[in-house]
Amino acid sequence: MLVIGENINASNKSVGQAISGKDRTVLENLARAQAEAGADYIDVNAGISQGAWESQEAAMEWLVELVQSVTDKPLAIDSDVPTVIEAALAKYNGQKVIINSVSAEPAKLDSIGSLAAERGAGVVALCMGAAGIPDNVEDRLKACDMIVEHLAALGVGEEQIYFDPLVLPVSVDSMQGVITLKTIQEIKKRHPSAKTVMGLSNISFGLPQRGLINRAFLLMAASAGLDAAILNPLDAKIMAAARVADLLVGKDPACKSYIRAYRKGFLAE
Amino acid sequence: MLVIGENINASNKSVGQAISGKDRTVLENLARAQAEAGADYIDVNAGISQGAWESQEAAMEWLVELVQSVTDKPLAIDSDVPTVIEAALAKYNGQKVIINSVSAEPAKLDSIGSLAAERGAGVVALCMGAAGIPDNVEDRLKACDMIVEHLAALGVGEEQIYFDPLVLPVSVDSMQGVITLKTIQEIKKRHPSAKTVMGLSNISFGLPQRGLINRAFLLMAASAGLDAAILNPLDAKIMAAARVADLLVGKDPACKSYIRAYRKGFLAE
Repeated sequence: MLVIGENINASNKSVGQAISGKDRTVLENLARAQAEAGADYIDVNAGISQGAWESQEAAMEWLVELVQSVTDKPLAIDSDVPTVIEAALAKYNGQKVIINSVSAEPAKLDSIGSLAAERGAGVVALCMGAAGIPDNVEDRLKACDMIVEHLAALGVGEEQIYFDPLVLPVSVDSMQGVITLKTIQEIKKRHPSAKTVMGLSNISFGLPQRGLINRAFLLMAASAGLDAAILNPLDAKIMAAARVADLLVGKDPACKSYIRAYRKGFLAE
Repeated sequence: MLVIGENINASNKSVGQAISGKDRTVLENLARAQAEAGADYIDVNAGISQGAWESQEAAMEWLVELVQSVTDKPLAIDSDVPTVIEAALAKYNGQKVIINSVSAEPAKLDSIGSLAAERGAGVVALCMGAAGIPDNVEDRLKACDMIVEHLAALGVGEEQIYFDPLVLPVSVDSMQGVITLKTIQEIKKRHPSAKTVMGLSNISFGLPQRGLINRAFLLMAASAGLDAAILNPLDAKIMAAARVADLLVGKDPACKSYIRAYRKGFLAE
């Protein structure tokens, strides 16, 4: 399971305050801690323009530079504003990078797809159009097909795409877990070179003991074919679930990663 | 997830000693505790003849009577010896009952299948023949097909069968988790009226933190279509996993069971 650390996101109150106040320490510590906990990518979301910043672009540039100064982990540039993504990519020195995210809307696909093509970046592609998250598998797959076609025309290969199947809360509709799992399976069948990625927490919205549900859903999604997850790597239990997932879906030959995690005390129960 | 409580099994040392010494208290407490913890069936395995008992049949009769005296939960009669199963069924007053287990061997299917047909019992059917557990999906499915056909001729319907897909340790072969999950999916496709059941602990043989692995595998198996699990209901964490599994695979309308378990403090993390 590829882990994209979600913590540096302006929608987290303390992170938003650190960005608007140009407080480097909080953010540097978060970047370092996620890298040490085993994140494969560090997501960076500078939010909308606020505090001391004259623009979203300026805030994102500063944030990219800051995270790069403390870790070599690749970044996931988290914005749906093309000029912000472009600014971030210009400041970013690394090879591997993911743009997070685009949806099945022609104008967005054009602008963000062109940036991805130019940079050879991965792209998180949400399986929805302008109307929001479809409540069924078929419409999510239609969005995928449209995205593949549109991005291909811009020079973005299927293998660069990380499809997010999207998830709605089971507290709203008890079949939504199954619908997301089925979407993952179908994406892997239709677009075998593409990867899948998901944020987990929406599944448990409105229910108690959300961590228990989120971990369980990560395991089910892994067995359905999920390749990557956007999560909090400082949550030791969800990281343990990600490692056990690899062990059980055949991605950990000779159990080496599992045993290594065990020896490091990383398998929180 | 239908939970079959596995604790009253002579291969557990303290249980074996209680059976051989005719010590009712230990066994009555185990039966009660499993029922209170939410087991749907209580498995009873009297082991081979030992201690104070003149025969396996006599020990099994005593054990069936003993468990029935403290709980109304239905029983899973755990033996592959037809005379022991017959003796148990004769002593058992309940309606619902499962015979655990038979494999794809004609003589066993004849004798145990006839008992199941007569009693309308469920039957746990292991997806293997006399040669042991196949290491691949195809041979397990061949065993299933043979079992369905053989039992049908005896008057046992597909809906009475609980197929055990069987599991080999991932420490021996990292693909064995995937093979078992695939077997469950294929059984549900080929024999949609049949149920699936599994013991979990073999998956984690030879590895540390086995509980973490077993719980994760239960969740993955549930999303592949597992209907029932043979497990220790006194392990609060695995019971929590079983409840979360139902929530996520669409078996818990309006999240009622999950919320009830939460209110009772049953969702151990």
